[in-house]
Amino acid sequence: MLERKHLQTLEGYVSGFQPTWNNDLIKLNSNENPYPPSPKIKDYFKDFNFDQLRFYPNAKSDSLRECIANIYDIDVENIFCGNGSDEIISLLFRGFFEENSSVIIPYPTYTLYETVAKIHDVNTICIDTEEDFSIDVDKILSSSKKAAGIVIVNPNAPTGILLSVEKIKFILNQFKGLVILDEAYIDFADENSSCLQLIKTYPNLIVLRTLSKSYSLCGIRLGYCFASKDIISILDKIKDSYNINTITQLLAEEGLKDRAYFNHNLEKVKSTRTRLGHELVNLGFDIYGQNANFLLCKPNNGLEAKAIYDYLAEPNIFIRYFDQPRLADKLRISIGTEKEIDILLINLHKLVREKGMSFESSV
Amino acid sequence: MLERKHLQTLEGYVSGFQPTWNNDLIKLNSNENPYPPSPKIKDYFKDFNFDQLRFYPNAKSDSLRECIANIYDIDVENIFCGNGSDEIISLLFRGFFEENSSVIIPYPTYTLYETVAKIHDVNTICIDTEEDFSIDVDKILSSSKKAAGIVIVNPNAPTGILLSVEKIKFILNQFKGLVILDEAYIDFADENSSCLQLIKTYPNLIVLRTLSKSYSLCGIRLGYCFASKDIISILDKIKDSYNINTITQLLAEEGLKDRAYFNHNLEKVKSTRTRLGHELVNLGFDIYGQNANFLLCKPNNGLEAKAIYDYLAEPNIFIRYFDQPRLADKLRISIGTEKEIDILLINLHKLVREKGMSFESSV
Repeated sequence: MLERKHLQTLEGYVSGFQPTWNNDLIKLNSNENPYPPSPKIKDYFKDFNFDQLRFYPNAKSDSLRECIANIYDIDVENIFCGNGSDEIISLLFRGFFEENSSVIIPYPTYTLYETVAKIHDVNTICIDTEEDFSIDVDKILSSSKKAAGIVIVNPNAPTGILLSVEKIKFILNQFKGLVILDEAYIDFADENSSCLQLIKTYPNLIVLRTLSKSYSLCGIRLGYCFASKDIISILDKIKDSYNINTITQLLAEEGLKDRAYFNHNLEKVKSTRTRLGHELVNLGFDIYGQNANFLLCKPNNGLEAKAIYDYLAEPNIFIRYFDQPRLADKLRISIGTEKEIDILLINLHKLVREKGMSFESSV
Repeated sequence: MLERKHLQTLEGYVSGFQPTWNNDLIKLNSNENPYPPSPKIKDYFKDFNFDQLRFYPNAKSDSLRECIANIYDIDVENIFCGNGSDEIISLLFRGFFEENSSVIIPYPTYTLYETVAKIHDVNTICIDTEEDFSIDVDKILSSSKKAAGIVIVNPNAPTGILLSVEKIKFILNQFKGLVILDEAYIDFADENSSCLQLIKTYPNLIVLRTLSKSYSLCGIRLGYCFASKDIISILDKIKDSYNINTITQLLAEEGLKDRAYFNHNLEKVKSTRTRLGHELVNLGFDIYGQNANFLLCKPNNGLEAKAIYDYLAEPNIFIRYFDQPRLADKLRISIGTEKEIDILLINLHKLVREKGMSFESSV
């Protein structure tokens, strides 16, 4: 037993089932974007000089950070790039939370935060969300006296519920520890729901973004965050020396710059989400927040969540089932293409006809 | 001051000066390979399906690990891939060394180890190498009673000196903590000098390798390591969930598989190293180990190391100068192409003629 004591009982992070991809498969289980990344990326690589790979990448992703600075109207010194948001989350725990300190995390939320806390021997104070999964900021604040940090995923996963800018300001006005605001899904949310510009006012706020969801670039691993210069300078000091490879730096920039393609894709995903939401309600499901590229839903039509999951997996439609408190009777469905959602709905209709009661018939 | 206490005085890792690359520049300061990566990499990308980047990468780099397993005759369960060796080094400190524990590190060696130790609040016991920079294993072992680990970079950087397999076995037979053996430069060393196969005998040995040096692939960030299944399983649990992006996994495999190109490049670098070694001695330099893709040398010809560094920087020839104990009178020169070394030597000859005494003239 050479490993550290607190790791001896650790269970690693469990990600969504990643089937070997093929064209017959409908993958709605990991909140990936159903549309390909910007075609500009492919164009860019036509003339790529592969010989440059013998050199180290730019250590601080300077050009990429300039690009991000321009798009978001934030100074380049307030931006840090990571090997996925994963790396940034790890660095935040490594850099800002002492061992045995405590961090507030609402439940349920993105489970990686609890795993990373355990890896770093940091305690978590889990604050249950309300019955409708909304976050009660008073509850958060009343538990925050001994906490070194607060984590808010906004919109939250897997609920899709958005916490308002006003409520986040309410937290920031009272809590002086680190506030980690993970906006991985914010591009799919209502307009003006981001707290990004608040980093100019609150030196303890860090806002995380990623290219994985709204830019269809899970595969290149690029997360970025915005915060005060003091926070960014610590991240710079404790990161791996060349944390972002050359190709990711270049591709990320191409993806970010193609604003027309980005906006067009967002609209498609949002429109499919609206349609899926209506259909799910008609099929007798309760749905929760509609601010991300997924919908959490609960069958109220006599069917069991796990049975629906299994039924859909048969014809290779993969959605997400969480065997954990308050979620085991629900399902999370990532927004696919119109065609993928058609096939999902055909199968769900079939199942409801066969085994369940549709919402209409149960009224 | 939101950061952790032990980080408040931390200075980050300082890497070699990275000038903006252009064709007129001779970059011999970061031990990059002077030859481009395998042309198979470029060929592979001709048909690359960029759309797949919307999916997460394989979480454990399975296919790449299979490829490494075949090349090195090691089971796939004994292999871990990291976002550069940097990530693996960080994970080893995060996973195996308690805060305030101690790790033995010879001096001088790759300075990143000391930086990473500080980041993780781990103490370092620095063991001075001998006058000729060789490592005395008895000295290491006599200080190891309270140490949780021993770091050996082999061949060592920046000295290029190789520690024999027998001496490493001697350490392993007596020390039961974690032994981190960083073989980043081993492909350039004498045959049969790797301790890779010893992981089958010693459950506390971890051997690190990288594609940055001998495979000319700094830019893609791929490090890998070999160790007992127990060690690998801890690394798997504490790593970021998708630590290696899709493109790096694929390119690394192409680079590794092209054995003919790899071997041919190695021979070229080694032959240039032999030539540069002779020339440096003729110019009145002492040289140290000749087992890596660089030579550490000391001017004994009346010139000062720093002055030589500055003189060469003028015509855009960058070598490495370390302003630290026992190294400030020496220079580290990465092995370039024959042509680059020609130009370096022309300039060195000129300098010696102008300001110094050549070795011949000083005898």
